[in-house]
Amino acid sequence: MATETIEARGGTWTGTPFLKQLGAVIRAEDSYGTWDDKTDADILSEFIVTREERQEIPIIGDPDPDVMWRITKFYDAIGLMIEKESGCMASQMQKMSHEGFGRIVLIAGKLVVVSKHLRDVHRFGFETWDKLSEGGEKIIADAVASIEKYPDAAKA
Amino acid sequence: MATETIEARGGTWTGTPFLKQLGAVIRAEDSYGTWDDKTDADILSEFIVTREERQEIPIIGDPDPDVMWRITKFYDAIGLMIEKESGCMASQMQKMSHEGFGRIVLIAGKLVVVSKHLRDVHRFGFETWDKLSEGGEKIIADAVASIEKYPDAAKA
Repeated sequence: MATETIEARGGTWTGTPFLKQLGAVIRAEDSYGTWDDKTDADILSEFIVTREERQEIPIIGDPDPDVMWRITKFYDAIGLMIEKESGCMASQMQKMSHEGFGRIVLIAGKLVVVSKHLRDVHRFGFETWDKLSEGGEKIIADAVASIEKYPDAAKA
Repeated sequence: MATETIEARGGTWTGTPFLKQLGAVIRAEDSYGTWDDKTDADILSEFIVTREERQEIPIIGDPDPDVMWRITKFYDAIGLMIEKESGCMASQMQKMSHEGFGRIVLIAGKLVVVSKHLRDVHRFGFETWDKLSEGGEKIIADAVASIEKYPDAAKA
């Protein structure tokens, strides 16, 4: 269409509550305010991995520590949103092989509210802001549903 | 008493089900049967840390990988005993700092059946076989009680 504009990498920035939470988690690392001029889209840009970029990332060798850091922050943001929605604090544990396979859990009380098996963590990322946001929100919704199903274990 | 004998390091070997399970977990690593001539007390001897030995182990620097291995095996044995007693398989996850603090969980389904915060892992060990056995059995009993309390989450 004539009115179509060329979209930025990641598509349209949607600024959903999850994206804002993830931005806040990243900004919490910025003790000296050096990123104050940057937008959330700027500081989250590495969470976007387009299809072409994805294909170029090798999956041999140890995953990049930056990728592990982003995965941790992604699940930290999920944990904080779970706490906002359910009142249950969820803490993260990871088990990662050097080959890029792993498991991440978020635990509230005695309940495992999130359990994800990861593979190809080298290529962790989302094609668009929409997909990043939906990816987080789906995990949060499932976790909150788990807490509602097993409230006693979650509060134990 | 005149009849008292000088006890070996670790006291009297009791051969409880937990000690046997722990021995079996260690022997599972012995692919070539080089420990076949050794007793369980021999292959578990490093789980015994007497009071004097304990004081001599420095708690600075990274914990010895051998200690981390023993801790993992201790909780592996616990996981197997939990499965025998409850039918629920429990998988282990660890989160360890380089300073010797950490957390270990065993997860069955969506239930955290064991959650232990560790400190001074450098000095992990038990004074006697009795204490090693009781230490494991207490964790197993608590885990089985948790599974009985939250059976749906454990089987989720």
